[in-house]
Amino acid sequence: MTEFAPPDPEYAARVRASFDRQPFMRLIGASVDAVEPGRCRISLPYRPELSQQHGFFHGGVIGTIADNCGGYSAFTLAEADSTILTVEYKLNIVAPGRGERLEGEGQVLRAGRRLVVCESRIFAVEGGRRTLCAVALATLMLIAGRSDAPA
Amino acid sequence: MTEFAPPDPEYAARVRASFDRQPFMRLIGASVDAVEPGRCRISLPYRPELSQQHGFFHGGVIGTIADNCGGYSAFTLAEADSTILTVEYKLNIVAPGRGERLEGEGQVLRAGRRLVVCESRIFAVEGGRRTLCAVALATLMLIAGRSDAPA
Amino acid sequence: MTEFAPPDPEYAARVRASFDRQPFMRLIGASVDAVEPGRCRISLPYRPELSQQHGFFHGGVIGTIADNCGGYSAFTLAEADSTILTVEYKLNIVAPGRGERLEGEGQVLRAGRRLVVCESRIFAVEGGRRTLCAVALATLMLIAGRSDAPA
Amino acid sequence: MTEFAPPDPEYAARVRASFDRQPFMRLIGASVDAVEPGRCRISLPYRPELSQQHGFFHGGVIGTIADNCGGYSAFTLAEADSTILTVEYKLNIVAPGRGERLEGEGQVLRAGRRLVVCESRIFAVEGGRRTLCAVALATLMLIAGRSDAPA
Repeated sequence: MTEFAPPDPEYAARVRASFDRQPFMRLIGASVDAVEPGRCRISLPYRPELSQQHGFFHGGVIGTIADNCGGYSAFTLAEADSTILTVEYKLNIVAPGRGERLEGEGQVLRAGRRLVVCESRIFAVEGGRRTLCAVALATLMLIAGRSDAPA
Repeated sequence: MTEFAPPDPEYAARVRASFDRQPFMRLIGASVDAVEPGRCRISLPYRPELSQQHGFFHGGVIGTIADNCGGYSAFTLAEADSTILTVEYKLNIVAPGRGERLEGEGQVLRAGRRLVVCESRIFAVEGGRRTLCAVALATLMLIAGRSDAPA
Repeated sequence: MTEFAPPDPEYAARVRASFDRQPFMRLIGASVDAVEPGRCRISLPYRPELSQQHGFFHGGVIGTIADNCGGYSAFTLAEADSTILTVEYKLNIVAPGRGERLEGEGQVLRAGRRLVVCESRIFAVEGGRRTLCAVALATLMLIAGRSDAPA
Repeated sequence: MTEFAPPDPEYAARVRASFDRQPFMRLIGASVDAVEPGRCRISLPYRPELSQQHGFFHGGVIGTIADNCGGYSAFTLAEADSTILTVEYKLNIVAPGRGERLEGEGQVLRAGRRLVVCESRIFAVEGGRRTLCAVALATLMLIAGRSDAPA
C-alpha cells in the first residue's frame, strides 16, 4: 500500500472536527473509529430507524457510511485551510446490511493535487462476525483556501 | 421514452406500501410524490439534521433519495409477489444540495427479466427554483416469489 | 435540456481535429457524425475484429465509444487553448452489441469550470433498427492552457 | 483475501479458450498472463495504434483491459457449461496510460450464484516501473447452461 504524508500534521483532529460538524452523522449515530494518513474508519450501531423494509440497514445508510469514510480518508491529505467535496461515488451492495453494526473503512488509492480517488469497504457485523456488505469507489475534490467550517 | 406495461396493475399501491415500510424514510422525512409505470418521484423537505458541515443536504441523503427513486421506478415493473434489491448505483453530485427541498425523479432505462437499469435525477429547490444537484445510474435486481413485506 | 454556449466558436473543428489525432479511433474505424454545443455523436461500423466470443461488439469497444462521445461533448465547451482528461466513467451494458453499427450520443449534463459531467447512450443498429445497448455517466476534467495537440 | 473454490477444475483452460475466441483481444494484442481462482492478469504491449492524441494508451483501451480482467476473474468461478456477461463497470483513470505496457489485475470481491463483483487495477509500465493507472469496480452475470463458445 502507498504511504501518504499528510501536509497538515493536525489532519486527524481536523477530520474529527469536520465530522462533528455534520448534523446528519449525529442523526444516524455514526462515529469515527480511526484516522490515519489516507485512511478513515467509521462505524454505526444498528437502530430500527435506519432500516429498510426487511429490517436491514437501508442502502442509503450504507452509501452514507461509504461516502463519508472515503471522503474523510481523502480529507486526511488536505491542506489545513481547505475543504472537500464528493464529486461522485459508485457503490456495490454485495450482501444485506444485516447485524448490530456497520463498519466502514476508507482508503486513498491516488491523491492528486485536486482530485483524490478512494475506495471504501463496508462490513456488516452480526453476532461479532464481519461480512463484506458493500464496496465503493469515489472521486473527491479538495478545495484549497476555503474553510471546512461555516463562517 | 420507452413505455412500460407493469405486470401488476396494483403497482402504485405496492410501491407506496413498500416505501411506507422503510423506517429510514420516516426518519429523514421523505415522501412519494408520484408513481407511474417505470417512474417514481420522491421529495424531502430540508431540516438541519439532514445536513453536512456547510448546512447543505448531506451527500448520503442525496444518495439515499437517488437510490430510492431509482429502486421504486424499477419496482413498478415487478410482479406482485416479488421484492427488489439494489445491486449497485453510481452518483454524481453536480451542485450543492442547497435549499428547502430535494426532489428526486427516477426512471427505468431498461427492464430485463431480473435486472433493471434506472436513472435518477435529484434537484435542489431553493426559493422555488430547481437546480440539478445529482444524477445517478443504478442496477436493481427483481426477486420473484419473495415477499417485499416482512413475515 | 440546458442550452450551452461554447466559449470557443471553433469548437466543432477543434473536436474533429482532436478526434482525428487519436490513432485508436482509426484502428477501430470510428467517426464523428455530429458536433453541437454540449453534444457529440460518434458511430462505428461492425467488423469481426471488434467482437467478443459471441460475435457481438466487444464491451471494451462499447465503452470506448461511450468514453469518447462523452468526452467530446464536454470538449465542445472548453476554451480554445485547453485539453481534456477522462476522470472516470460508469457504463451499464443493457443489451448485446449486436448489429451492423454502434451509434453513440454524448451530452453534457453539467458543465463546471473544471469538471464536466456527461451522459452517453450507445445504440446497436441491426437491420436498421436501433436498440439501446449501453448507458454511461462520466466525469471529465478540462485543463486550460495545455494544448490538446502534441508539441 | 477470500479463497475461492472454482466449481470447474478446468477453469484456467476455459478462461484462456474464451479469451482466445475474442477477436478484439487479437486486434489490440492483449494476452492472458495468469489465471487463478477468482483472479486473472492480462497485459498489453504499447503500439501507436492504441493511443489517444497525446500518444498514451487510449482510455477505451484501458477500460477494455479493466473489463476483461474483471470479467475473466469472475469466469474462473463459473460452472463448466456457462457464459458470462458484463452488467456494468466503473473505471477511474488515475494517471495517464504512459509506457511500454499495460498490466491489468482482476480479482473477485464477492461471488454470488449469478452476480459476481470484481475489482481491477491497471498499471502502466514505463521503463520497467509500474504506476497505478486505473481502478475499476464491475458487476458480472454468470449465465448457466449457455455455452461460451459460438455454436
